[in-house]
Amino acid sequence: MLLNVSSTSLIFSSQQAHRDWLASQAKLPDGFRVGSVRFNFIPRETPKPAKMTLTLLTLDESTELFAAMFTRNAMPGAPVLIGRRRLQEKCWRAVVINNKISNVCAPDGEATAEKICAKVAELLDIQPGEVLPSSTGVIGWSLPVDEMLGALPNILPSLQGQSILPAAEGIVTTDLYPKIRRIDLGNGSIVGIAKGAGMIEPNLATMLVYILTDIAVSRDDLRAMLVRVVEPSFNSISIDSDTSTSDTVVVLSSGKITCSDMADFEAGLATVCRDLAEDVVRNGEGVRHVIKVKVHQAPDFDTARHLGKAIVNAPLFKCAVAGNDPNVGRLVQAIGKHVGAQAAGLDLARLRLRMGGIEIFADGVFKLDPHKENLLVAHLRDTELYQSVAPTDGVYSPAVNFPPHERCVEIEVDLGLGQASAVVIGGDLTHEYVSENADYRS
Amino acid sequence: MLLNVSSTSLIFSSQQAHRDWLASQAKLPDGFRVGSVRFNFIPRETPKPAKMTLTLLTLDESTELFAAMFTRNAMPGAPVLIGRRRLQEKCWRAVVINNKISNVCAPDGEATAEKICAKVAELLDIQPGEVLPSSTGVIGWSLPVDEMLGALPNILPSLQGQSILPAAEGIVTTDLYPKIRRIDLGNGSIVGIAKGAGMIEPNLATMLVYILTDIAVSRDDLRAMLVRVVEPSFNSISIDSDTSTSDTVVVLSSGKITCSDMADFEAGLATVCRDLAEDVVRNGEGVRHVIKVKVHQAPDFDTARHLGKAIVNAPLFKCAVAGNDPNVGRLVQAIGKHVGAQAAGLDLARLRLRMGGIEIFADGVFKLDPHKENLLVAHLRDTELYQSVAPTDGVYSPAVNFPPHERCVEIEVDLGLGQASAVVIGGDLTHEYVSENADYRS
Repeated sequence: MLLNVSSTSLIFSSQQAHRDWLASQAKLPDGFRVGSVRFNFIPRETPKPAKMTLTLLTLDESTELFAAMFTRNAMPGAPVLIGRRRLQEKCWRAVVINNKISNVCAPDGEATAEKICAKVAELLDIQPGEVLPSSTGVIGWSLPVDEMLGALPNILPSLQGQSILPAAEGIVTTDLYPKIRRIDLGNGSIVGIAKGAGMIEPNLATMLVYILTDIAVSRDDLRAMLVRVVEPSFNSISIDSDTSTSDTVVVLSSGKITCSDMADFEAGLATVCRDLAEDVVRNGEGVRHVIKVKVHQAPDFDTARHLGKAIVNAPLFKCAVAGNDPNVGRLVQAIGKHVGAQAAGLDLARLRLRMGGIEIFADGVFKLDPHKENLLVAHLRDTELYQSVAPTDGVYSPAVNFPPHERCVEIEVDLGLGQASAVVIGGDLTHEYVSENADYRS
Repeated sequence: MLLNVSSTSLIFSSQQAHRDWLASQAKLPDGFRVGSVRFNFIPRETPKPAKMTLTLLTLDESTELFAAMFTRNAMPGAPVLIGRRRLQEKCWRAVVINNKISNVCAPDGEATAEKICAKVAELLDIQPGEVLPSSTGVIGWSLPVDEMLGALPNILPSLQGQSILPAAEGIVTTDLYPKIRRIDLGNGSIVGIAKGAGMIEPNLATMLVYILTDIAVSRDDLRAMLVRVVEPSFNSISIDSDTSTSDTVVVLSSGKITCSDMADFEAGLATVCRDLAEDVVRNGEGVRHVIKVKVHQAPDFDTARHLGKAIVNAPLFKCAVAGNDPNVGRLVQAIGKHVGAQAAGLDLARLRLRMGGIEIFADGVFKLDPHKENLLVAHLRDTELYQSVAPTDGVYSPAVNFPPHERCVEIEVDLGLGQASAVVIGGDLTHEYVSENADYRS
């Protein structure tokens, strides 16, 4: 019994309207509290001052009902290495999350993360093994452990059980706004938060997603469901084809409410994951158009998804979309490049392409004329999140800090080869992306 | 006996110095003539006027000594489809090349290309099968066949046997300057030209490379050599990870001069290809830093090259380089992403990384401090081709139209796993790239 369906047609009239909507999503499930603290420090590797937010998610009682998945990047961060071990623990009670520095391949990175977990455990009077550490930010730098240990006690007064919003705000780095999605199921709920906004082509999970629920689902079921629902959600998006060293998705249940229908729960979990994944793209670094590629009539899901990824990761097509330029030749290039290099033997003879519902390719040739060109330009303009404005100093920044709508550039690919399909979501490649990433760290 | 070695340490004091150097490379091998013609037309798909250059490369006599390789993109252009068939012909005599429209998946694309070949054959009194068509430019549009047939006779008066420069200039699209490389071998020579400058991650060949020689090497030997030399040259570069639908590399010998040493010839061919490949990157769309990744101690060449490609194709690392920001965390991310997704099982325990000769990673952890940071910034500044200047209208364009030097951002990756190595060359990701590609066609 889903009380809430996917809300992928939201249109926001203002930043306040978006904030109001976020607040309406933010009520914590029963049995959880969140809090955060912010402080300044000097990184060891550079004399430039920096700010860090420490966020704490806690359960009122320790739970055996938890699941987590981590990045497949072969150079994972210390929190990922620890998190994998923590999957064997009997219970979890808290997640401690910092932004700014991701604690990846830093000297003594694991020992540092364990010190922070031990401090949290001391403060909450629990075991260190019940605390999951999580970090996001610059790769290569060391965590400011003394400052973090000093700041942790200051989180306790901020802990509250009403709203997940402080946590959604605390975990962001370059995100323009917090991301929250919820599903209400009977008397219970599933509430998830995510951060983006770059280095996003998750491979098994996306960077820092925390999903809380008060509905009791066994640990084994929760883990099996998570494996299934990440495939069409976090594993089907790409902002820039880069895969973070810290990708983490966690599901925690307080078990307060009996699950009346497992299928409904899984459908709800899938919806929260899919909506959060799209949120991550919509707030991707520099993203001005969300591109949704639907690949149909494929021989299997993996073939469909890989082809969709190849399209949303093709830089020239992404640039054309950024410029509201329906350069569909670059779309065909992306398909041909992928099939030629990665899917040799896939028959493209029955390939049909639509963009914004308009047929652009069939029978082996393009179907283009000046009228269609105008319609395609109109579709691209209609799906733009904001217009790029040339700055006087050359450093572009996004024109808005709320998503005005949930429209997408719609690409449909029919292969004519089978029954499988996949939806892949990505973004365009803009001056705002380059400005953000040529300057982000230094 | 190589009279000319790789000139990868050139420094140019001015645009004129670069032009003078190009002229010094441009002398045609014996037995060839080139010419071109430029005209205006209105494309069928848009009312906006466009310009096209038609270039003709001819031999004084038909030759059996030819080799060619074409793109592996699964949606190849009509000239590629025809070119593959032409490999079976007894002789070749001419190559006719147009820019602006690439003739890919256009209605009646092959018939149009054959009409143009037939007209060239009529003008030169040869067989149509001796003419190779080649096209580059917008994908999806149709060639303006009537205008092209009308323009072809006007090429004949321009044919001359002294300089390849008119052909090097005629084939460009978004290139900033023509690209020519030569090797003199005894009384003969190998001279190659190439165009870039976007959609460049060649898969078997790069977009439109023509190499002429007067040294007689059998067709079979020529083809076998070409397969070998493209691997460390054109197949080891990437500007933007996109693979053109029209990639073509052609070698034509007039056979005027006896080959005294096959190994010398192959070494010369390899040098011309490697230097042209680096030229293509150096003039890649928006490229402000050439990034040269040397992967050493790899178990095999393919592993080394794929890892190098993953680094030069990682958008976040490319942006950091553009900003002279030694964000080496993103370099490690790129390695980990590739190994996690594509090379599972590759042991990274002995990974060592240097940038600009400075050790940044060893023993599983970063080796960073503020002093090294300063040295890394200096290396990035030193290898910059030009500084980006913020324009008032937001449309970035390169600050120079000649390459001031041939320095590269030097990345060294030691895997500690074997004896194989590979060198991969790529570029950074800049505002100039986005400006060029968000606006190039419309």
